[in-house]
Amino acid sequence: MLTEFDLIQRYFTRSTPDAVLGVGDDAALVRVNEHMELAISTDMLVSGTHFFADADPFLLGHKALAVSLSDMAAMGAQPRWAILALSLPEVSEVWLEKFSAGFFALANEHRVGLIGGDTTRGQLNICVTIMGEIPHGKALRRSNAKVGDDIWVSGKLGDAALALAHLQERVQLTATEFSTCVPSLHQPTPRVLLGLALRDIAHSTIDISDGLLADLGHILKASRVGAEIFFSAIPISSAMQSMHDKKLIQQFILAGGDDYELCFTAPKTQRTKIEKLSLRMSLPLTPIGHITAASGCIVHAQNGQPIHLEKSGYDHFR
Amino acid sequence: MLTEFDLIQRYFTRSTPDAVLGVGDDAALVRVNEHMELAISTDMLVSGTHFFADADPFLLGHKALAVSLSDMAAMGAQPRWAILALSLPEVSEVWLEKFSAGFFALANEHRVGLIGGDTTRGQLNICVTIMGEIPHGKALRRSNAKVGDDIWVSGKLGDAALALAHLQERVQLTATEFSTCVPSLHQPTPRVLLGLALRDIAHSTIDISDGLLADLGHILKASRVGAEIFFSAIPISSAMQSMHDKKLIQQFILAGGDDYELCFTAPKTQRTKIEKLSLRMSLPLTPIGHITAASGCIVHAQNGQPIHLEKSGYDHFR
Repeated sequence: MLTEFDLIQRYFTRSTPDAVLGVGDDAALVRVNEHMELAISTDMLVSGTHFFADADPFLLGHKALAVSLSDMAAMGAQPRWAILALSLPEVSEVWLEKFSAGFFALANEHRVGLIGGDTTRGQLNICVTIMGEIPHGKALRRSNAKVGDDIWVSGKLGDAALALAHLQERVQLTATEFSTCVPSLHQPTPRVLLGLALRDIAHSTIDISDGLLADLGHILKASRVGAEIFFSAIPISSAMQSMHDKKLIQQFILAGGDDYELCFTAPKTQRTKIEKLSLRMSLPLTPIGHITAASGCIVHAQNGQPIHLEKSGYDHFR
Repeated sequence: MLTEFDLIQRYFTRSTPDAVLGVGDDAALVRVNEHMELAISTDMLVSGTHFFADADPFLLGHKALAVSLSDMAAMGAQPRWAILALSLPEVSEVWLEKFSAGFFALANEHRVGLIGGDTTRGQLNICVTIMGEIPHGKALRRSNAKVGDDIWVSGKLGDAALALAHLQERVQLTATEFSTCVPSLHQPTPRVLLGLALRDIAHSTIDISDGLLADLGHILKASRVGAEIFFSAIPISSAMQSMHDKKLIQQFILAGGDDYELCFTAPKTQRTKIEKLSLRMSLPLTPIGHITAASGCIVHAQNGQPIHLEKSGYDHFR
C-alpha cells in the first residue's frame, strides 16, 4: 500500500526549474523580485477526515486558516494573502456567518487578506492556499539540519491527540483536563512570530501537524542526518501528566497529529538567544535532543531504553 | 435563497488593501515587484457536482488544470505555477497514474510547474490554485468595458452543455455529433495565448465557465454598463446546428456552463487587429454585439424579438 508521501513522490513530483523550491517542504518558494521569495502552501480539510461534520463553524474557520499559517511559520514566512475554496453540502447562513467570523478573526490578527476563492456544492471541504513573503535565501527549509544541532519544540505536545481521544471516548478526562487540552485541537495557535524570529537562528524547521516523530523524520530525511531525543524532556501539559497508560501517552506525544507547534534545529551557540526568545514570547521553547550523523531517530525513555512506537505518525492512506 | 455570488459577497469579501485586486474577478492580483503583478486563482472540482464519479482520470487531470489556466487567460496572465490539493476516497494507482499524466501533459504544454499541494482522504475533490504573471497594470479586468465596445467570443459556444445533455439523455446526438462536441466538455482548451494577445487589445475579458449571459453579466455589473447581443451572430458547431428544440439551443448557447472560451470587449478600432489575430491563431473570434449605456443585457433573436431565458447561468446553490 502506498503511503501519502510515496503517492506524492511518485505521481506529483516533477522537476520545477522555475521555482526556488517545489513539492516536499511546508511551502513552495518562488522568486518574485531581487530581494524576496514568495512561500505558497495549500491545505485541504475534509469533513469526517479532519473534523466532525457538526464541528463548531467558528472554530473551523479559525483552524482552516491556522493550519495554513502554521506552514508559513515553519518556513519563516510573513503571511500576506489567503485564498479559500469551499465545498458546501448546503447553504446555511448561520454556518457561513460563524465560519467566516472565525476565519477573519485570525486573518485580521495576522493582517492576512482573503483575496480570492471558489465556492461549490459537495461534501464539506475547506481548502486554504496561503502566500507569504521571505527575504531571499532566508527560508527555514527541512533540509538544512546539521549534526550537533539541538532539536527544539515550541509549546507542549500531544494535547490535540489527547483531546481527540477524549472526544472519541478512548480516554476519559475530567472537564478541567479536557478544557485545558481541547484548544490545541480546535483552536491551535500558529507560531508565526516564532517562525519569523527563527529566520536567523534555526537551521531547519517544520510544523508538527502529523506527529513529532513523523515530522522530525521529514527533517532527518531531507537533511540526511539522524536524531536522538529524550522522551522525558518533551514538554507536556498537566492533562497529559495525569494520564496513566504509558503506551498511550507515548503515542499522543510522539505521534499525535494536529499539534501545530514548531520543531526546529539550531546550533548549540544559539541556546541563549532561544531561551531569551522563549521568555520574550512567553512561549515554552524546549530542547529535546540533538541531530546525529547516524541515520534514524532514537527516542530514549527515562530508564535509558529506546521507545518503539507501533505507528509513528498520521498518514491519510494507511 | 442566497446565490453563490451573494454568498461570496456577504461572507467572504472584505477590503484587501495589500492586494491590487481582491475577490470578484477571474483571479486576484498582488504586486510583487516594480514591473509585475501576480494573478492567483483557485478552482475546486467536486465529484458528482462538476464531473461523474467514473470520469476518465486522464481527462479529469487535464480539465482540473484547464479550468485554472482559463482563469489566467481571462486575466491576460502568463501561467507559471500550480498547486494541487486532492481529496481521494481511496488510493488507486491506476487512477493516480492517469490523472497525473493528464495534469502534467497540459502543464508541460504551458510550461507550468506543479510546486506544491496536499493529499488527503475524502470524497473526490480536486482543488487547483494557479499563479501567473502580468506586467503591472496590464491585467484584463471585468470592470473596464466601455460603452461602444464590441463584444467578442472565442471558439463556438454551447458544445459542453450539449455534450452533457447527451450524456444525461436529455438530447440524443449521433455518434459523430457527440464526438465533435464532447471535447469541449471533457478536454477544454484554455485560451491562454489569446488572453496574452488581448492584453493590449481588449478593455475587459472573462472566461465563459458559468454560461455566456451569466459571465457577460459579470462584466456588465463590474463595468456598470449594459449590452445588446445578436443571437444569430453567436458561433456554434454543426452538432448544435443539427438540433431542433429552439428553447434548448438558446439555453445551451446562452447559459450553458463549462465552455472555457473567452468573452471580451474591445473598441471598434481594434477590429482589424482582432480579425488578424483570429487568423494567426486559427481560432474563431466573433463579434456578437456591443456594450451599451443602458443597464442589462438584451439578446436579439433573428426575428428582432428579445430572447428571455428561464435560467441565465450556472449557480451551485440555486
